[in-house]
Amino acid sequence: MKELKPQVKVGILGGGQLARMLALQGLKLGLDVHVLSARSDDPAAQVVRHWTQGNVESSADLKKFFGKVEIATFESEFLNVDLLSKATPRGRLEPKPKLMGLLQDRLTQKQLLAEHKIPTADFMAVETEADLLKAWSLFDGRLILKKRRFGYDGYGTFKLTHPSEVSKLVKLIENEPSGFIAEALIDFDRELAFMIARSRSSDIATLPLVETHQENSRCLWVKGPSRNPKAKQLMKRFAHVLKKIDYVGVMGVELFETAKGLMVNELAPRVHNSAHYSLDALGCDQFTLHWLCLLGQNLPKTAALRAPGFAMWNLLGSCEREPSWNLGDENLNFHWYGKSENRPGRKMGHLTALGSTPEKALASIRKSRKSFAL
Amino acid sequence: MKELKPQVKVGILGGGQLARMLALQGLKLGLDVHVLSARSDDPAAQVVRHWTQGNVESSADLKKFFGKVEIATFESEFLNVDLLSKATPRGRLEPKPKLMGLLQDRLTQKQLLAEHKIPTADFMAVETEADLLKAWSLFDGRLILKKRRFGYDGYGTFKLTHPSEVSKLVKLIENEPSGFIAEALIDFDRELAFMIARSRSSDIATLPLVETHQENSRCLWVKGPSRNPKAKQLMKRFAHVLKKIDYVGVMGVELFETAKGLMVNELAPRVHNSAHYSLDALGCDQFTLHWLCLLGQNLPKTAALRAPGFAMWNLLGSCEREPSWNLGDENLNFHWYGKSENRPGRKMGHLTALGSTPEKALASIRKSRKSFAL
Repeated sequence: MKELKPQVKVGILGGGQLARMLALQGLKLGLDVHVLSARSDDPAAQVVRHWTQGNVESSADLKKFFGKVEIATFESEFLNVDLLSKATPRGRLEPKPKLMGLLQDRLTQKQLLAEHKIPTADFMAVETEADLLKAWSLFDGRLILKKRRFGYDGYGTFKLTHPSEVSKLVKLIENEPSGFIAEALIDFDRELAFMIARSRSSDIATLPLVETHQENSRCLWVKGPSRNPKAKQLMKRFAHVLKKIDYVGVMGVELFETAKGLMVNELAPRVHNSAHYSLDALGCDQFTLHWLCLLGQNLPKTAALRAPGFAMWNLLGSCEREPSWNLGDENLNFHWYGKSENRPGRKMGHLTALGSTPEKALASIRKSRKSFAL
Repeated sequence: MKELKPQVKVGILGGGQLARMLALQGLKLGLDVHVLSARSDDPAAQVVRHWTQGNVESSADLKKFFGKVEIATFESEFLNVDLLSKATPRGRLEPKPKLMGLLQDRLTQKQLLAEHKIPTADFMAVETEADLLKAWSLFDGRLILKKRRFGYDGYGTFKLTHPSEVSKLVKLIENEPSGFIAEALIDFDRELAFMIARSRSSDIATLPLVETHQENSRCLWVKGPSRNPKAKQLMKRFAHVLKKIDYVGVMGVELFETAKGLMVNELAPRVHNSAHYSLDALGCDQFTLHWLCLLGQNLPKTAALRAPGFAMWNLLGSCEREPSWNLGDENLNFHWYGKSENRPGRKMGHLTALGSTPEKALASIRKSRKSFAL
C-alpha cells in the first residue's frame, strides 16, 4: 500500500454529474481535483477551482490537461480510445485506455464475459442483413439489437420480437460504422447490480447487491441490500477478471435475476448511477472508493451499511417548469447536479433514504418526492 | 416554508476549513457557492469555482461580494461588526451583523445568558486593576480572565488561582482596548456541547448532546451521543432565546457538566468543530442544516443517528514532517482541509468513526489514527 501525501493532483475527463460527485468526494479527501470539460456551467465545472476548458476528444486539450495532473479518470467510457491512448502519458489514466476500448464495445465486453465463463445472454455480432436474419433464427425471434458503441439509457437499443421489426432495422445496420451486437432476449424477474473495485495495490472491495428499477429504459430507483444465492460467487469471479486484465477503479455490474440464476447484462467501467445510494448509505461511497483505487490505497474490507435498508430515487427532468423543492421535512438526503437545462428524462439530481428495510426506505422517498417539483 | 429554486447564489465570508465544509455541503445541495477570502490556497478557495479574492474586513471587498450573492454567512464571528453592518445589504447576512456583535463579545454573550436565566459561571467586566482585584475577591481567588473579543482555542484566556498571577496581568488588562471578562472558575466533570439551529421559517432543530475533550485548550476528540438529564430543558430554553433575538443559522453551545447541573461555557454563532461528526454520523450534517436555515427551509425533525455511537478526532499539525496517510484499511471517514502549512496544533483535517457505543467509535479511531502521520 502506498503512503499518501496530501493534495495529489487528480484529474477527471468530463463535466457531468458523475464527474461532479467524483470531484466533491475527492475534495473531501483533500485531493487537488482538476476537471476537463467543455462549458463553465457543466455540473463538475461548477465545483472545482481547477477547471480546464476543453474537449475530451481533442488531443491537444488532453495533453494540456495531463500536464497538470498526476493521475486521471473519466466519467464516460465512450471516448475515442485511439486518440486517448496517444494523448495519455503511460500509467496516467485509470481505468486504462486499452480497457476503456475493451469495455466500451458491447461485443468485446461480451467476449470477455464468455471467456471467463460468466453467465450472460447468448450473443453474436451483426454487421449485415444476413447476420440479422441469422440472429433472428438463432434466438428464436426474441432478441435485443444494440449498437456496439455509444449506446446508453436505451438509446441505440432495439427489441425485436416481430418479423416486421427486422426489415425496418436493415438500413440502420448497414449505415452504422461501429456495428451491432444481437443478444438473446432474457426473461428476468428483477434487475440487480453491484459495484466492484480494485485498487492499484491489488486490493478488492465489493459493494452490496441492489435492485434497480427502470422506466422508459432509464433507472428510476434503486433499493438494497438485495439477496441472491449466486451473488457472492459471481463477485469472486469478477475479482479474478479484474486482476487478470489489471483493471483499476470501480466497475458497475448490471444483472438479470432469472429462473436459471444471475446473468450479467452490462458492465460500466466507471462510477455508476446504481451506486449513488452509497453516498449516504455506506461508510465508504463509490466515488471515494474509486479515488482510493487510483491512489493505490487499501480498500475498506466491509461495506459498512448505515442502516438495514436504503433506497435512491433519480430526479428526472420534465421540462414543464423550473425545478423547485422543499427540503428538510423528511429524513431524505438531497443531491442536485446544477444542470442548466431541465430536459425531459434528464438526470437532474437524486434522493436517498435509509430505513429498517429496503422497502421502507423506498416508501419514505415515494411519500416525500412530491416536495421536489421538476 | 419557502419553495426553493435551484442554484441560489450563496456566499461565505472567510476561507478556512469551516468555510470549506460549508462550501462542499452547499455544492451537494446544488447551491451556487461563492467564497470571499484572502488567498487562492485557502481551504475553501480550493473547492469553489466562484472565489473572490478579498479581505472580509474591507468595506469595498464586502460590497463587491454582496453584489454577487443573494444570501451570505461567515465562518468566524470575529469580524469588524460596524464595518460589516454598513457593507451588508439588509437581510443579506445570517446570523445578522447585530447578533455577531452581541455574541462575539463574551460580556454581552454572558449578559444574554443571564437575562434568559440560563445557568453559566458568575462573571464581571474587567477593565482596570481595581476591577481585577474585585473579581479576585468576588470569585474567591479562582477565576478565568478572558479577552472580551477575538479569543479562541485558549488564546486570550488566563486561569488565575495564585495572587502572583494577578499582578502579572495588570499591564495586559490596561493595554487591551476591547476589555476583559472575569468568570468564576467552574469545577466540572465533563465538557459537553450541542448544536441548535433555527431556520428563517422559524423552525428549530437540535443535534445530539456530545462530550468534547480538550488538550492544550484545543479540542482533540468528540464522542456521542451523551446523556444528561437537564439537556432537553436547556435546549428548549435556547430555542426560546434564538426566537427572541431572531437568530438564523446553527449555533454551537459549549457546556460544563457539574455537580450542580449543566452550565453554559461559551456560544459560537456558526458551524462548530464539536459537530463535525455530523458529516458522517447524522442524516443531516451541521453544514447542510445551516444552509437549510438560511434558505428558509424546514429542518429535519429528528437528528437521524446512523449508528448508536460516533466519534470525531481532530488531526492536528505537528510541523515535524510532511503529512501522509494510509486510507481504507479501517472504516474511518477521513476529511482533509488542504492547508498549505503543517503548523503545530493546527487543525489539518479530522477523522470520524461510527460504533455500537460512543466509546467503541472513539476506540476504533485511536487504534487507526497512527495511519495518519502529521
